[in-house]
Amino acid sequence: MAKKPLTPAKVMELGFGFWGSKTLLSAIELGLFTELAKGARTLEGLTSRLSLHPRSARDFFDALVALGMLKRTGARYANTPDTALFLDRAKPSYVGGILEMANARLYGFWGSLTEGLRTGKPQNEAKTGEDFFGTLYADPQRLEGFLKAMTGLSIGSARVIAGKFPWKKYRTFTDVGCAQGGATVEIALAHKHLTGGGMDLPVVQPVFEAYVKEKRLEKRVRFHPGNFFNEALPATDVLIMGHILHDWNLDEKIMLLQKAYDALPPNGALIIYEALIDDARKGNAFGLLMSLNMLIETPGGFDFTGADCCKWMKAVGFKRTKVERLAGPDAMVVGYK
Amino acid sequence: MAKKPLTPAKVMELGFGFWGSKTLLSAIELGLFTELAKGARTLEGLTSRLSLHPRSARDFFDALVALGMLKRTGARYANTPDTALFLDRAKPSYVGGILEMANARLYGFWGSLTEGLRTGKPQNEAKTGEDFFGTLYADPQRLEGFLKAMTGLSIGSARVIAGKFPWKKYRTFTDVGCAQGGATVEIALAHKHLTGGGMDLPVVQPVFEAYVKEKRLEKRVRFHPGNFFNEALPATDVLIMGHILHDWNLDEKIMLLQKAYDALPPNGALIIYEALIDDARKGNAFGLLMSLNMLIETPGGFDFTGADCCKWMKAVGFKRTKVERLAGPDAMVVGYK
Repeated sequence: MAKKPLTPAKVMELGFGFWGSKTLLSAIELGLFTELAKGARTLEGLTSRLSLHPRSARDFFDALVALGMLKRTGARYANTPDTALFLDRAKPSYVGGILEMANARLYGFWGSLTEGLRTGKPQNEAKTGEDFFGTLYADPQRLEGFLKAMTGLSIGSARVIAGKFPWKKYRTFTDVGCAQGGATVEIALAHKHLTGGGMDLPVVQPVFEAYVKEKRLEKRVRFHPGNFFNEALPATDVLIMGHILHDWNLDEKIMLLQKAYDALPPNGALIIYEALIDDARKGNAFGLLMSLNMLIETPGGFDFTGADCCKWMKAVGFKRTKVERLAGPDAMVVGYK
Repeated sequence: MAKKPLTPAKVMELGFGFWGSKTLLSAIELGLFTELAKGARTLEGLTSRLSLHPRSARDFFDALVALGMLKRTGARYANTPDTALFLDRAKPSYVGGILEMANARLYGFWGSLTEGLRTGKPQNEAKTGEDFFGTLYADPQRLEGFLKAMTGLSIGSARVIAGKFPWKKYRTFTDVGCAQGGATVEIALAHKHLTGGGMDLPVVQPVFEAYVKEKRLEKRVRFHPGNFFNEALPATDVLIMGHILHDWNLDEKIMLLQKAYDALPPNGALIIYEALIDDARKGNAFGLLMSLNMLIETPGGFDFTGADCCKWMKAVGFKRTKVERLAGPDAMVVGYK
């Protein structure tokens, strides 16, 4: 029985994985994919359009080819179908906002992961006394960028929820912590019999309403200004929380689930969707790493499995729960009252 | 012809790839794999041995399971065959030194990749006027760690070179820029008829000689102190440069190749090995990213293809050249005089 000799290739590939990751993040920061969406470019043309120094431009572009993010035909670089659709800032399908945020903030903060693991404390702006969200909410343009980035993160899953959940049985819904309204809008567009809304902090209102108007949904979709820690949730047939619960500690999670239960009518439903960790906690690396990101970003947040969420839902009173896979690493947990 | 709908999964996976990469780097920094080499540990045992805060320890270990770097059986965490062999500091097969360096230095410096691409200037200690190598060479213990890390990077390829190159035709060799002597020793161990040596800066001598003595090769392997910019190379049948040429700009590369040609006897051979970029510059992402790492680390260094190297070798006089794949992303170019 000849055994293949072990090599350090897998260890090295993962250990140096930040090289390829940061290369993509810099390409998004530089607007490379947005530029190429206007047409294929030569090395010289692209270097000049992006104001790059000639020294490493070719290595940079060719590395993106080797990473599957660009294609090169003859002397011209072009987007792949994926990057053309998802990384062109001019397209509504742009998901790069969240990666711009990863580049500008998280990449650096993750440099202190070891300290976070030793102390259990966040490693973001909070460490130096800055208030990221305070500053963000005070700057309407940056806030809009951030809220749009959240849409990029949620819209794939929202489309699957619009298709998989039995919406015919319900008439009203609220997306709690709705941001720009990415999920709210997808669901309303897919189901004309629904009226619904999004709840978020008052500062979010103009961004939400502009997006809803752009999608011509202002007659069926409204904004509920409020802080979900201080106020009751809107009494609608279905409540949704996407990438919300993982921000908070266990007591806060349970409190939010209880609040949702209390606001729902009999037979109402709560949909929680996140990058759920698999129940065995061995498979969904992204969900587990997202939980480490909650260490970096929050005082007590953490990600969880479908089984964890079902248990908490039952504890606050939900009769029945169901877990279903969505797009990418996301899954949803539905609790029926 | 039904087309699969595009999803942003590949873009997101690469964009957030730094999460998994940094998680492994922190695990190496914390000595996780060295600890588990002593025996499997429970969550509580491992958390306490590594002095971690309990908040995120379980997510951290389980993320490493999902990334394929640990296994968990029942309640106990253990190394995989790969991590047991390559990431236990107590084993001579440890390759983690280079990843410790990536964690302590490169992860942060790569945060300025965009600036590097715009300016063409290094983004390491040089940017703040520090002298990384000066400080390193002044501290024997840190220097030894660094030179050992280089062994981890080279030893896999050195074993393949020991096997593939027609050593029977030659009697003497010198490894130019030998560091600890990782490659020098592998080749001498595999071919008892060879006598050889390593050339590096004088400060490297004690580390090289200790390693050679440990391998009982002091009768066949000696150290040549010298700076390959100021001095001639030792006149031996074969000269080797591993991960050396990519540090330098084109003029310096050509000068080093010329120096090697001049030092070799007729029918002598020069072996260059590196993470060579594939000739089409579309496949070996690691080689292209290594070239961006030369932007981060050096004023003019860059990686290159086998075809580039053959062309330069021919230009300085080599009669015949040959490119062969080695371990992982490495390949060698042999020039025959």
